[in-house]
Amino acid sequence: MKRSELIQIIESKKSVLCVGLDPDISKLPKSYGSNAKGLAQFCKDIIDSTADHAVAYKPNLAFFESIGSSGWEALAEVAEYLKGFPEHFSIADAKRGDIGNTSRMYAEGILNKMGFDSITVAPYMGKDSLEPFLIPGKWGIGLGLTSNSGAQDFQMKRMKDNRYFFEHVLDSYLDWTSPESWMVVVGATQSQSLKSIRFKLPDHFFLVPGIGHQGGSIEDVMNLASFKSGFGKGVLINASRSICFASSGDNAAQAARNEASRLHQEMISHW
Amino acid sequence: MKRSELIQIIESKKSVLCVGLDPDISKLPKSYGSNAKGLAQFCKDIIDSTADHAVAYKPNLAFFESIGSSGWEALAEVAEYLKGFPEHFSIADAKRGDIGNTSRMYAEGILNKMGFDSITVAPYMGKDSLEPFLIPGKWGIGLGLTSNSGAQDFQMKRMKDNRYFFEHVLDSYLDWTSPESWMVVVGATQSQSLKSIRFKLPDHFFLVPGIGHQGGSIEDVMNLASFKSGFGKGVLINASRSICFASSGDNAAQAARNEASRLHQEMISHW
Repeated sequence: MKRSELIQIIESKKSVLCVGLDPDISKLPKSYGSNAKGLAQFCKDIIDSTADHAVAYKPNLAFFESIGSSGWEALAEVAEYLKGFPEHFSIADAKRGDIGNTSRMYAEGILNKMGFDSITVAPYMGKDSLEPFLIPGKWGIGLGLTSNSGAQDFQMKRMKDNRYFFEHVLDSYLDWTSPESWMVVVGATQSQSLKSIRFKLPDHFFLVPGIGHQGGSIEDVMNLASFKSGFGKGVLINASRSICFASSGDNAAQAARNEASRLHQEMISHW
Repeated sequence: MKRSELIQIIESKKSVLCVGLDPDISKLPKSYGSNAKGLAQFCKDIIDSTADHAVAYKPNLAFFESIGSSGWEALAEVAEYLKGFPEHFSIADAKRGDIGNTSRMYAEGILNKMGFDSITVAPYMGKDSLEPFLIPGKWGIGLGLTSNSGAQDFQMKRMKDNRYFFEHVLDSYLDWTSPESWMVVVGATQSQSLKSIRFKLPDHFFLVPGIGHQGGSIEDVMNLASFKSGFGKGVLINASRSICFASSGDNAAQAARNEASRLHQEMISHW
């Protein structure tokens, strides 16, 4: 999906909602069954029920891998299903990154073979580990300032030139990538930094986890991190558990729709 | 596998050879067929032919994921096969790492479900992203100073206190982990740093890629990075492509054995 298409979809829907698919097998409603088939069906039901409100879907690969190789069959099924939603941006939340010849294999499997629009990427190994994800028509989404407490441990440490380490990473993204094919992960819990990060990267989309369970605010994210023009917003705000497991009962899909609708309304109210 | 067992195996065999399984589907000898079945069989043949010389095996997950979900079936088959080699340490080269609840899922799938002894871990997201891999009897292997050119981009940058960023990461590993369940990736191409890294982390095993194709030297690694006592050495030196693709013909397994034997002899000569 092109950047201009994504912006068009966001504006026409007045939504920046990304639904994170974290299908924790131990939490699936009983009627699905605790297996790969149930896991895939659960994701498909969540997709169906939230599609009116979401502009993006983000399967978290760890929850598929947690059940072993059958989990990847379920992931392939979900990836295939998402192709039926061409107006929704798909994100493989995989946090991959390795030496060039290995990153190329991850890109081949996840972006080309499975057909995801994008993949999240861990930057520790530097430029040659990121470059294989810069494929025309596809997107890499590099970790910037994450939403978890561990962001303090390395990302928020000061470099010799006084920048935070994550700022050094963001400056490198600016040098190495284009806003047409690279996004950046910035946690909603980092509200004190959102404004300066937008200043640093005026045109890159941000993937923003950390609302709901982790405590970040939609209002803060939309006020502080949107594109200066406001048009197309430039953020994808992710909610995972608060949508997927809004109910633990057989009404999970309906409860997910209600929560997605509530978040969508909140986004519209800050448009 | 316990640290004491691994040291025992290394000493009795006089080998620190880790065979990296990078089964590039485009390079498999024709007789295997370009599919998951061929990919798994190729790995099994490489394992059989090199087992006398190796003490560890390291499947690189990217090469399995590159062919989609059937690649994970092949990976599961290889993981199962490795259980028949209890005197060989198994490493899932996966470079995983995410917020706590997600890292836990990776640990569940790769260490518990598939049964690998260890998994390589990317540290960018900090302490809570690493902790789920600290499972008794299992190992996390954290990225330290990697072998690729991109190591310059972030790892070799100076912090405010003048440490390199990778040194800050290593110091954190020292604080957070035990040498009984954590190893560190240090590239063989980083010979100028191997000695100081061993000084910093006297008791942690190092997983050392970067010999062969990437240009690092076994002699340097063994001289500079072994445990001070020398006993058990404290390094696992990985070779992937130079073993797996020593020949592109139907004699690939025999050629792999010859190359593994050659590397083993070189290790013995520096014992």
